[in-house]
Amino acid sequence: MSGVFITFEGPDGAGKTTQLQRLSRHLQQLGTEHICTREPGGTPTAERIRTLIFDPEVQLVPDAELLLFAAARAQHVQECIAPALEQGRWVLCDRFTLSTLVYQGYGRGLSHERIYQLSAMATGGLQPHLQLVVDVDALHGQQRIHQRHGDVNNRFDTLSCEFHQRVVEGFRAAASSEANCFVVDGRNSEDEVHHSIINALQQRGLL
Amino acid sequence: MSGVFITFEGPDGAGKTTQLQRLSRHLQQLGTEHICTREPGGTPTAERIRTLIFDPEVQLVPDAELLLFAAARAQHVQECIAPALEQGRWVLCDRFTLSTLVYQGYGRGLSHERIYQLSAMATGGLQPHLQLVVDVDALHGQQRIHQRHGDVNNRFDTLSCEFHQRVVEGFRAAASSEANCFVVDGRNSEDEVHHSIINALQQRGLL
Repeated sequence: MSGVFITFEGPDGAGKTTQLQRLSRHLQQLGTEHICTREPGGTPTAERIRTLIFDPEVQLVPDAELLLFAAARAQHVQECIAPALEQGRWVLCDRFTLSTLVYQGYGRGLSHERIYQLSAMATGGLQPHLQLVVDVDALHGQQRIHQRHGDVNNRFDTLSCEFHQRVVEGFRAAASSEANCFVVDGRNSEDEVHHSIINALQQRGLL
Repeated sequence: MSGVFITFEGPDGAGKTTQLQRLSRHLQQLGTEHICTREPGGTPTAERIRTLIFDPEVQLVPDAELLLFAAARAQHVQECIAPALEQGRWVLCDRFTLSTLVYQGYGRGLSHERIYQLSAMATGGLQPHLQLVVDVDALHGQQRIHQRHGDVNNRFDTLSCEFHQRVVEGFRAAASSEANCFVVDGRNSEDEVHHSIINALQQRGLL
């Protein structure tokens, strides 16, 4: 594979999607072919799985939730991400395996070993060249989400503050233990975060 | 758990569902509390996953299909099957882990090791007391299905004759290698098959 695979990770409301769009515009200016995608989702089938996962009416035990994320990921990797990388394109992806480790592992308390096994199954071993982790306080992130959507947008918004606190801390822990992570401070201005990301890519010889 | 867990397995059109209903009526006459359920499905969420899996319009790579079956199973076991067994009820289930081994393993060619791993994850180790395998020729089963539905009913009906032949042979192979299997000849009359099943349950001390 000759493309570059970059994932955007972090708690809800950290500004991941905005930063993904900023990087996309930057690549566009450079004439670098790329696609923007997201998890769960990114293909019609995986988007249907996303709808199911996030539906606040759906009853879902944590094991089933984890397996649905893995199913959506297998479809996304094989149908969309791997082919794009093979064609030499960059892939910018909003959330990937790190979010599963954090939300289902640190958040729901599922076994990290099981999560690694399922991620390996779903990705076929494909790993991002860089996982950009946008760090933010739990309260700050939740405030941004509430401003955007009102109180309940999806099944994860109904979870407790303690859950969201575990997620924030989980991203910090995972970013220091997992490979190819770079943490940016999401409390800085949008421009500052964007420039940190460009620098990180340049320092790694990716740009 | 004090209930009895019986699964009905075999190729499409073998008469599994009819035999499940016959056993249910028999248990009813005996006053034995039981539930009838099916896979994939059996709970509202798992039925939504079933709809997705069987939709002929849905693009699904074999790994994603396998993970969706596992997700539906985890939900079904934890929300429906395990609680019923804990309350001392019998559970009669139309398809379970043997079908996954046969369709996704023998049929699609996925690794049996991976299928065992995912089944263990999805069931939490719960195994049927008896897996009733209704054996039938591929052609015979497919004829019954076509009589029932016309040519294309779901994503599996569009598969080749060779696929359905591998499924028939896979059930025979799996029935001789997996635990707690009993094979009945689905080419016999409905009454004969029913009596074989009752005998098998009595011989094992379950009835």
